[in-house]
Amino acid sequence: MPDYTLHCFAESGNAYKAALMLELTGQDWQPVFVDFFNGQTRDPQWRDEVNEQGEVPVLEHAGQRLTQSALILEYLAERTGQFGPRDDNEKREIWRWMLFDNHKFTSYYAALRFLLCLKKTGETQVTGFLRERATAAYRIVDAHLAKAPFMVGERLTIADLSLAGYVFMPEDTGIVLTDFSYIEAWKQRIQAVPGWKHPYELMPRTA
Amino acid sequence: MPDYTLHCFAESGNAYKAALMLELTGQDWQPVFVDFFNGQTRDPQWRDEVNEQGEVPVLEHAGQRLTQSALILEYLAERTGQFGPRDDNEKREIWRWMLFDNHKFTSYYAALRFLLCLKKTGETQVTGFLRERATAAYRIVDAHLAKAPFMVGERLTIADLSLAGYVFMPEDTGIVLTDFSYIEAWKQRIQAVPGWKHPYELMPRTA
Repeated sequence: MPDYTLHCFAESGNAYKAALMLELTGQDWQPVFVDFFNGQTRDPQWRDEVNEQGEVPVLEHAGQRLTQSALILEYLAERTGQFGPRDDNEKREIWRWMLFDNHKFTSYYAALRFLLCLKKTGETQVTGFLRERATAAYRIVDAHLAKAPFMVGERLTIADLSLAGYVFMPEDTGIVLTDFSYIEAWKQRIQAVPGWKHPYELMPRTA
Repeated sequence: MPDYTLHCFAESGNAYKAALMLELTGQDWQPVFVDFFNGQTRDPQWRDEVNEQGEVPVLEHAGQRLTQSALILEYLAERTGQFGPRDDNEKREIWRWMLFDNHKFTSYYAALRFLLCLKKTGETQVTGFLRERATAAYRIVDAHLAKAPFMVGERLTIADLSLAGYVFMPEDTGIVLTDFSYIEAWKQRIQAVPGWKHPYELMPRTA
């Protein structure tokens, strides 16, 4: 029985945030596949038993069940002593960017990718709207990364792992990634961290 | 010179979260109007000087500048000793719902209201998409409030103040609010808290 169990699926960048943290900190963990595309997270029983918010990731550890990627990242940083804040100021900066990520950076990009690349709706007013919003969030993060190699200072923190949830996903969302040179360089720095793995290598994929 | 200065505008439910917290805890504060609708938050100088994330609320206090409504709520709860968690378990529950709020509950509703009611785009594919997403988030919160009077236990916390950001906004987004009877009852409980004020009474409105 591994120390940590992560309810997840490989196509979820939100689950990847937790999976990559478990991997980079060298934890003993196993994934439990969630069949999102066949409605498992909308199933009333799953919501009752696993997560009433109807989302992955869900982390089980030592009799506890944790949800929300940002809280899972903070929990693992505290337990492992890795990639967390060193003082209150860093803590606030990390949370500031994790919140921006949840509200705008990950969320608009993930919704766009879901519709265009996974649900394959084709180009619609909705994908256009989401691309515009995602691009605006990308611009803000790119401008921030022009000033420092990582989101909070000189080293990798859980803020980076949160924002990096979807940036390695291979599907083409129509956002011109080369326009965001600081984000591209930051992605390379993350990929160079010992132990880094792609989401599709870390978690079970939907058939 | 008041203790707290809040960069805000009345149409912003995200700013209202902070403004209502300042008011309910009896702080000495003043609003500074941000002309969002004429592009102030997109102005490079404003981003440089006030908030690189291009958003309200921004709270100034004792030489510090704080952004992100959830962090501002936590900061004020810690300083005032009001509406915060009483233990680690409550703290995690509060944050879990503030994150869900940022990701889904406030965000889809606010985007829908902005397009349909303030920008007046009329009904489009985009407003349809946002209404569907906002309604799904409403269902999850309504089901949670069927089990308890407030989001975390028996009393008002900053989780409620976060989720309540937009629920008192008067504009009709086409969501049938009477379908969510537990949310409607919860809104009445919040309005009954001594000192409660409507967003349009607390902050300066755009002309």
